[in-house]
Formats: sequence, structure tokens, C-alpha cells
Amino acid sequence: MENNPKNNATMVVFDGDLDKAMASFIIATGAAAMGKQVTMFFTFWGLNVLRKDEAVNVKNKNFLEKMFGRMMPRGPEKLGLSKMNFGGAGSKLMKKMMKQHNVTTLPELIELAQEMDVKLVACTMSMDVMGLQKEELIDGLEYAGVASYLSEAEDSNINLFI
Amino acid sequence: MENNPKNNATMVVFDGDLDKAMASFIIATGAAAMGKQVTMFFTFWGLNVLRKDEAVNVKNKNFLEKMFGRMMPRGPEKLGLSKMNFGGAGSKLMKKMMKQHNVTTLPELIELAQEMDVKLVACTMSMDVMGLQKEELIDGLEYAGVASYLSEAEDSNINLFI
Amino acid sequence: MENNPKNNATMVVFDGDLDKAMASFIIATGAAAMGKQVTMFFTFWGLNVLRKDEAVNVKNKNFLEKMFGRMMPRGPEKLGLSKMNFGGAGSKLMKKMMKQHNVTTLPELIELAQEMDVKLVACTMSMDVMGLQKEELIDGLEYAGVASYLSEAEDSNINLFI
Repeated sequence: MENNPKNNATMVVFDGDLDKAMASFIIATGAAAMGKQVTMFFTFWGLNVLRKDEAVNVKNKNFLEKMFGRMMPRGPEKLGLSKMNFGGAGSKLMKKMMKQHNVTTLPELIELAQEMDVKLVACTMSMDVMGLQKEELIDGLEYAGVASYLSEAEDSNINLFI
Repeated sequence: MENNPKNNATMVVFDGDLDKAMASFIIATGAAAMGKQVTMFFTFWGLNVLRKDEAVNVKNKNFLEKMFGRMMPRGPEKLGLSKMNFGGAGSKLMKKMMKQHNVTTLPELIELAQEMDVKLVACTMSMDVMGLQKEELIDGLEYAGVASYLSEAEDSNINLFI
Repeated sequence: MENNPKNNATMVVFDGDLDKAMASFIIATGAAAMGKQVTMFFTFWGLNVLRKDEAVNVKNKNFLEKMFGRMMPRGPEKLGLSKMNFGGAGSKLMKKMMKQHNVTTLPELIELAQEMDVKLVACTMSMDVMGLQKEELIDGLEYAGVASYLSEAEDSNINLFI
């Protein structure tokens, strides 16, 4: 692969299920290992992947936002499966089977992605709508909107919506 | 961005949930604002996004098609969320939170996309299978099949399946 | 279309629902008909599309893997819909409506794809995690990991995650 600026990779991470989040980070770290500049744009439920696992005390949340925040999973350890989740049992089972096969866990994959300079971008419009504030998300993120995503996508030959 | 004919954007809108439909139209109108020719190809459940909100009296529907038509949501106001929908309550909540943050509504986004000459294409094969007829869909659509989608995708550097 | 090595198409087939699997094979066979080299990479639930429809006696399965294998659908005839499945009733209904309109069935589409030299690749990491062995999948597949997917995606101008 030539180091062509049009050879980047972008992903919109929309769903925020454990299985889809794993797939997106496996692709992202793989692409980064090939020398690609990779940008992951987390939007809607995808933002849950980036949440800290403890509750963070933030001001200026209205009732709806607090309620929404409490119902949505806090971070990679709490995510469910997109199928056969059975109230979290499927998710636990999947993690057990992954461990048996020494598959890197999602928290490890996120750390790895950050070490490999994969850009993790939180969609500011979705944060507004869902009432999520910067203090509730992990460190090392960028914050941007759709125009920024599109400009990255423009320079990429691999663009996925996950 | 050069006005390169290979710089278009296409999206297959498959799911037809409120949140995914919003994401697809936000990306589409953003890309159109950058000067891209954008084509959205609505297939399977995605067709529900394009339905008129009232029941339309059409002939030549068999029993299965009528039943299917009645069970599927009629247009952008009736769509549910892909997650935490709770029989429509989640969808209402999300719309309320969007309104609080002055996010453009889905019906407005669809209108905006049409004004910006985003091509909205209904997949004719899916219409056949689901028994949806042109009279049941909003005005200003094009009708085509997979070959037409692929030829648009061929000229695009951003191709998403949503 | 020039026969450009960068003009291939790849798809990650992740979900493994009947409707999404149909969409992916319709796009794949359409792209192959245009002269494109098409690679479909089956991962996570997408592997269920490639399962043989009978139980296969394999050794070295632990309890979790056996249980998982029993709960996941065996092959294209057993897949459910991503929406309105109603325990399989929606899936049957959809197949009936497709038959009324002479839409090619999923098993036929898979056969067609193989005849048109669409590369069907099973993700080996997902097979490991889900405890699926080669004997349980249909013939004519290739087996590879994410690096192989990325190298195919690099040569493609249409890349979808389905």
C-alpha cells in the first residue's frame, strides 16, 4: 500500500452492541496495523462504547437526560449482544467463549486502538440529544460533527457504517 | 473537493428505524452541502421511511400484502427506534430530546434532502415483495433496482449500508 | 467499467438475518454480473448463513460451544427476519411473498454466487469463538481473518458492512 492520503479508513459506529463494537475495533486496529489512518466516529448508541463505567456527577442534566443516561449501558463491559442477548446472559457467554480462545477483550481493543493512534471521535450532536457530557466519556477523544466525518470519509477508500 | 464524477455518495437505507433514518439523512444532506451528488437507495424496511402517513386505497393487493402493509409503520412520524423503543415510548422520548436541542426532525430532513437534489430511490423489487405501490409512497422518488444502485455506487467514494 | 484491480467489491456479512443476507447476496451477484470480483466475508452471526442445515457430528466441542451451536440457526432456510420475525412467522410470510413475486430464494442466491465466483470467506476468529468447525459449513468456502478482509477491501471501491 502506498502512503496515499486517500487511503484512510473511517467507520461510523452507530449500534453500540458488544459484538458490533468488537467487529469495528478489530477492523480498526487491523487497518491501523496496515499503516492506514483510521477514524471511528461514534454516534447515537455507539456513544455507549465510550462511556466511563462509573456514574459521573454532571450538572445541567434535565430529567429526561438523566433517565436516558441511566438506561443506557455504561461502557464496554456493560454492552449487550445485538442478538441472543437474553438480558445479558448471552453477552456473558460470548465473553467467556472469547476468553477461552484468547480473543482480545473490548476494553483492551479500545486501549490498543488509542495506542495505535486510531482517532476516536464522539458525535457532538448525538451527545447533545442523549444528554451525554464530555466528563462521562473516556479520555483521549475528539469531538466533532457530521462535516468532520464527511471530510475524513472523503479521504478514505474504506468507509463502513456499523 | 474537485467535482470528480467518482466523488458521489450512495447509501442503502435498509433498516428504516427512526434513529438510523435520521443518521442516513444527516449524512446525506451533509454530503450534498459539500457539493456531492448523493443517492439514497431505500430497500426492505427502509421503504417505510418513504410511506405517506395516511392509508392509500390501492387495488390489486392480496391479503398478505394488505396485512403486511398494515403492520409496517407509515412514514417518518411512525418509525420506532432500533433500540430501547418500548412500543414507541422510546421513539417519542427521543423526538422530545431532539426538539429540546433544536435538531431538525426527520420529515424536515427528508424535505431538505429533496430540495438539495439528493436522489431518493425506492427499490422496486422490495416494493413488489412487500406489496407497496407508488401511490403509497411520497412524491419525487425514482424507482429502480440493484443494477441502478451498483452503477451509482461505482461512481461514489462513500458507500454505506445503513 | 474498466477491469481495474481497484474496482472490486467486498461485504462484511455480520448480521445473518434472512432479509439482510438476501440483500447482501442480491448486491453480490449483481456486482459479479457487472464483472466485479466480489468477496463476502462472513463473521459473527453471518456465519449462520453458511451452516449446513443438518447437525454435523464434530469432536472437540465443549459444552458452551454445543449449546451455542444448537441455539443458532442452521443455514439459510432457518434464518429469521431482522424485524417483525414473530418467532419465525414473519420469516415464513416473507418467503411466501417472495415466492409470489418469483424472487430468487436465498439458497438459490448462494448457489448462484458460487457459480459466479463470488468469494465466500468464513472468518476464522468468529468460527473459533462460536465453536463452529469447517465440517459444519457448506463446501466451497475460503477461511481467513481480518487482515485478508482488509487487503480485499483495499482493492475495492464498494465496501459494505451488512
